[in-house]
Amino acid sequence: MSEAATAFVPGHITGFFTVCEDDDPTKAGSQGAGLALSDGVDVTVRPTEERAVYLNDTSIGVEAVERVLDALSVDVTVTAETDLPLGSGFGVSGALALGTALAANDALGLALSENELVTIAHGAEVQSGTGLGDVVAQARGGVPIRLEPGGPQHNLLDAVPARARVEYITFGELETEAVLGGETDPIDEAGERALSRLVGEPTLSSFIFASRRFAREAELLSERVGEAIEDVSDAGGQASMAMLGETVFALGTGLSDAGYDPAVCATHPAGAMLE
Amino acid sequence: MSEAATAFVPGHITGFFTVCEDDDPTKAGSQGAGLALSDGVDVTVRPTEERAVYLNDTSIGVEAVERVLDALSVDVTVTAETDLPLGSGFGVSGALALGTALAANDALGLALSENELVTIAHGAEVQSGTGLGDVVAQARGGVPIRLEPGGPQHNLLDAVPARARVEYITFGELETEAVLGGETDPIDEAGERALSRLVGEPTLSSFIFASRRFAREAELLSERVGEAIEDVSDAGGQASMAMLGETVFALGTGLSDAGYDPAVCATHPAGAMLE
Repeated sequence: MSEAATAFVPGHITGFFTVCEDDDPTKAGSQGAGLALSDGVDVTVRPTEERAVYLNDTSIGVEAVERVLDALSVDVTVTAETDLPLGSGFGVSGALALGTALAANDALGLALSENELVTIAHGAEVQSGTGLGDVVAQARGGVPIRLEPGGPQHNLLDAVPARARVEYITFGELETEAVLGGETDPIDEAGERALSRLVGEPTLSSFIFASRRFAREAELLSERVGEAIEDVSDAGGQASMAMLGETVFALGTGLSDAGYDPAVCATHPAGAMLE
Repeated sequence: MSEAATAFVPGHITGFFTVCEDDDPTKAGSQGAGLALSDGVDVTVRPTEERAVYLNDTSIGVEAVERVLDALSVDVTVTAETDLPLGSGFGVSGALALGTALAANDALGLALSENELVTIAHGAEVQSGTGLGDVVAQARGGVPIRLEPGGPQHNLLDAVPARARVEYITFGELETEAVLGGETDPIDEAGERALSRLVGEPTLSSFIFASRRFAREAELLSERVGEAIEDVSDAGGQASMAMLGETVFALGTGLSDAGYDPAVCATHPAGAMLE
């Protein structure tokens, strides 16, 4: 024990969601569905005397990570590496929180269970206001459907039993806090309709169709994102917007076929894991 | 759609368990814990006019597979391949049931969710009397702890957040039905004690310690298996018995260090998945 440990956490694109508030952060969260991605975040934890957090060799402050370290009562150095765009709807903050929890548990021999670690990371992310459902989806992997919100003790997950090549392209950043801090009624209503559609037919086609309608109905589409989604449709493909980012994702070769130069990955069948 | 589809299902070694009976097969099952293995079963489903099931090129009858096909109302050819020993505690029947459900859903475009498919496979396995907890563990992957029995709508799972090299050696077959059909009180009492120990300290060491005590207390150890476990202990390693098989498994290089010539694999971080 007390050596360095590294966890890989898949990125996570949310296609649609609802906002479920609760005073208890382990019950708060969101319903919705998304894609866990083979592009993710590697998080290494080393026991040190003082705390430090680095992302791609740059020192950063991440409230969700600080909250995880507080909950675990540990001081460590967290070194994370990712190729994912930041602030663009890939769940990087959730990945940092969950990866820190998993790697710290292993490096320091804390002997917590997976559910306990996921609960801590989920609660930290919710309390930081940076995400509502990424952590539990990233812990599961695949194409998770969040039927009920919250951490592992309270939520109910299902999944679309499918795998896919995923393409994505990002046009800029979007502040999760800014969107989630506003009026969420249109989001919740659109999110519930999208969830009903997907539960009725849990397939990838249905997921991306429901996601596209959600983006429109919840009025979250920017012009640029809307245009790219239309370009993919015109080329015979299927795309939608990553919640919450100025990011378009497509199944298969949707963006390439429409003439874009996307990043390419795939759904990641496993959830977060030690390396 | 209507093409062949293949699913990989990890093998699963149960370290300890309890028997939880219920008239509803989606509520029946077992508590316990085990290891999902990178050695598993590849199950291919092809739409055909009549049913046929092959395992390693031999035509076989597997009640759990028939029950899955009945539940899905489909006639297909199921072709499965595995290097795992049969009837030796690796969850091959559960893997066949779950792999058939996943691959048939994909091949025939049945549009069922992951939970629905796991529920069907779990119920089929329980009703066939060939397993109680393998299917839900194989659907999750990793080192699953079954806190509450049953299918995904009723059970409660956690996991040991760890990975390991796993070695195993098999001395012969054991009939699951014969053991589970007898008096299970000693098993249940020992299983509950083992579960309490593991929940108190959810680590790999604790898992294998609890499993070894369970095997003794439940009086399931054969002489040969007991000797091999002792050989591993004498060589400084940790081993226990796969439930239910004449099989010894060890973490790391436990069996090799004790002079055995084991099969070698690892824990499989992902659950069953389409290929």
